[in-house]
Amino acid sequence: MNFKNFPLVSKVVFGRGSIAQLNEIISPKRKNEKSPFIYLIDDVFENNNNIISNISLLYDDYIIFISSKDEPKTSQVDNLVEDIILKTKSTPSGIIGIGGGTLMDLAKAVSLMLTNNGSSDEYQGWDLIKNPAVYHVGIPTISGTGAEVSRTTVLNGPKMKLGINSDFTPFDQVILDPELTTGVKKNQWFYTGMDCFIHCVESLNGNFINTFSKSYGKMAYGLCKEVFLDDISFSESQNKLMMASWHGGMSIAFSQVGIVHALSYGLSYVLGIKHGLGNCIVFNQLDDFYNEDILLFRKMIKKHKILLPKNVCKNVSDIELNKMIDISFNLEPLWENAIGVNWKREISRSYIKSLFKKM
Amino acid sequence: MNFKNFPLVSKVVFGRGSIAQLNEIISPKRKNEKSPFIYLIDDVFENNNNIISNISLLYDDYIIFISSKDEPKTSQVDNLVEDIILKTKSTPSGIIGIGGGTLMDLAKAVSLMLTNNGSSDEYQGWDLIKNPAVYHVGIPTISGTGAEVSRTTVLNGPKMKLGINSDFTPFDQVILDPELTTGVKKNQWFYTGMDCFIHCVESLNGNFINTFSKSYGKMAYGLCKEVFLDDISFSESQNKLMMASWHGGMSIAFSQVGIVHALSYGLSYVLGIKHGLGNCIVFNQLDDFYNEDILLFRKMIKKHKILLPKNVCKNVSDIELNKMIDISFNLEPLWENAIGVNWKREISRSYIKSLFKKM
Repeated sequence: MNFKNFPLVSKVVFGRGSIAQLNEIISPKRKNEKSPFIYLIDDVFENNNNIISNISLLYDDYIIFISSKDEPKTSQVDNLVEDIILKTKSTPSGIIGIGGGTLMDLAKAVSLMLTNNGSSDEYQGWDLIKNPAVYHVGIPTISGTGAEVSRTTVLNGPKMKLGINSDFTPFDQVILDPELTTGVKKNQWFYTGMDCFIHCVESLNGNFINTFSKSYGKMAYGLCKEVFLDDISFSESQNKLMMASWHGGMSIAFSQVGIVHALSYGLSYVLGIKHGLGNCIVFNQLDDFYNEDILLFRKMIKKHKILLPKNVCKNVSDIELNKMIDISFNLEPLWENAIGVNWKREISRSYIKSLFKKM
Repeated sequence: MNFKNFPLVSKVVFGRGSIAQLNEIISPKRKNEKSPFIYLIDDVFENNNNIISNISLLYDDYIIFISSKDEPKTSQVDNLVEDIILKTKSTPSGIIGIGGGTLMDLAKAVSLMLTNNGSSDEYQGWDLIKNPAVYHVGIPTISGTGAEVSRTTVLNGPKMKLGINSDFTPFDQVILDPELTTGVKKNQWFYTGMDCFIHCVESLNGNFINTFSKSYGKMAYGLCKEVFLDDISFSESQNKLMMASWHGGMSIAFSQVGIVHALSYGLSYVLGIKHGLGNCIVFNQLDDFYNEDILLFRKMIKKHKILLPKNVCKNVSDIELNKMIDISFNLEPLWENAIGVNWKREISRSYIKSLFKKM
């Protein structure tokens, strides 16, 4: 097949306060009393009544609070799935993820692994999933990753950081409620928002771009500029960043990310640096490639008084550095999108090493 | 429920020449040898090898060529469904619509009525459909209506022109191949493209607008301006108008159309004027409401040397005029979106009559 056949999220609600409709939306999806709904929720919301009060636990339904301090891991997914299988009498009626990119990816991965045998790391790659996932719902509480709309769930596995890309990965239901992003810390808001901005930059400047992805990318890029450079109201900024994240995710549908993501995957895997921050650290060193957009990025950094960490690779051993380079170098489609099929003529391991050294 | 829960098209391909992948895409959806794929194709393509050569008729598959001279009717849908039931041994594996808005709407309606009893006019309205439709694929060959992405199929019934709006209406698969719009006649290209432009104007200026619909609407509006006012290449123009139609359709997801559609439904029902042209005739009289955008519209008319029909209501009888007013007046959500809940204080039957008289 020459052109990708992209699966979309099945249903989407948008609106401030729309999380109040959660029960009404999922009730018809309950299979029976023995098949619970299981909520995976970022543990920062454990005492947050604005969110928890919207959840009605019926029959065997329960909540698992999960820390998003670390990036999601295949072993974490496998443990969650094992626990759920042991604890429930029947396959769950649904998995509901509430949180940022980490929780979105965990909800997607758990719902896939409840119906596919083995360990989740066996499915890292493209179209390795055999069976449809359990019904899964995504409710993002921070905007930028695009995980709410993508056909991947990116996990750190025993060998690499790579997504489970499949037609069964996208959510069956997404609830976009911008009010839920109230309370996000400024740094996290900025770094995650920049994930979206960088998706657009990489997609719009890539070789794989077509009119479909370009239209989404331009829309998200414009919304990011409004959010991070203009003076708009707080609620407008919440609404617009949530839509930017959605459209930015769609802009990669027929396109691909690029050098930032290739290098930041290496950085995250070895140093455990979270994705949004990792992207910002990498992006700031890529003047050779994304010049104009990096100037814009630095304007945003300045406006919001963000202090980007420096010298994060200072104490990295040669073995670790080589692992980072391996991971980055192996993400061929990303380099192909950014530079072209002959990217290896231009990009050497030593060049990548020099970039990491500057970070 | 306060916020709409919008169902999206399940899968989408975008690309010039992507119709070549049709067989590969639908093959896994064949239920058995007795359940055919049935193609509903605009009869202008009967001898068009670029399209027909991409269709492989296997087992009991067959093509029905349909004229799109008239707007689609509920009786036409009922007849098609009856013929298909008589002719096939088992419920079809899928319905594939190839053509403009008329064919898109017929494909959606036929696939719904193959699994729902009675006559299609019983389902005109909101959420009256009980059972999921047969698998259905939309392949638009002209851009603007947004029918490829909407949750409605608009039909002229015995009493009114109204859509079958349901969660089961959207296509399971859409193939967006801008090359298929080659050969569209200039007037038709313009009027259908203006349907999209008007969707955006009505959505963006309506009371129901939110950030979700606004982002799609602005994107489609911008693309329409590029297509109809800038000098871009033919293929770029094809690509962009196809995406404008898609996004313009999405912009109504959480919004609604407005006065143009309310009046043009009346015009189409009584005079049989096709939707795109009807919209243009109406829009041109609404300076009171959409002033700036009408100036832009007239610029487009001028640039493309379009001669808009005049005095189309000259020979309309009083009975017919009253029917037109009835139909327009009954479309309450459209008026509410355009003017507000108290729209009846501002809009009288005699005012609507005066507008029709000017057309």
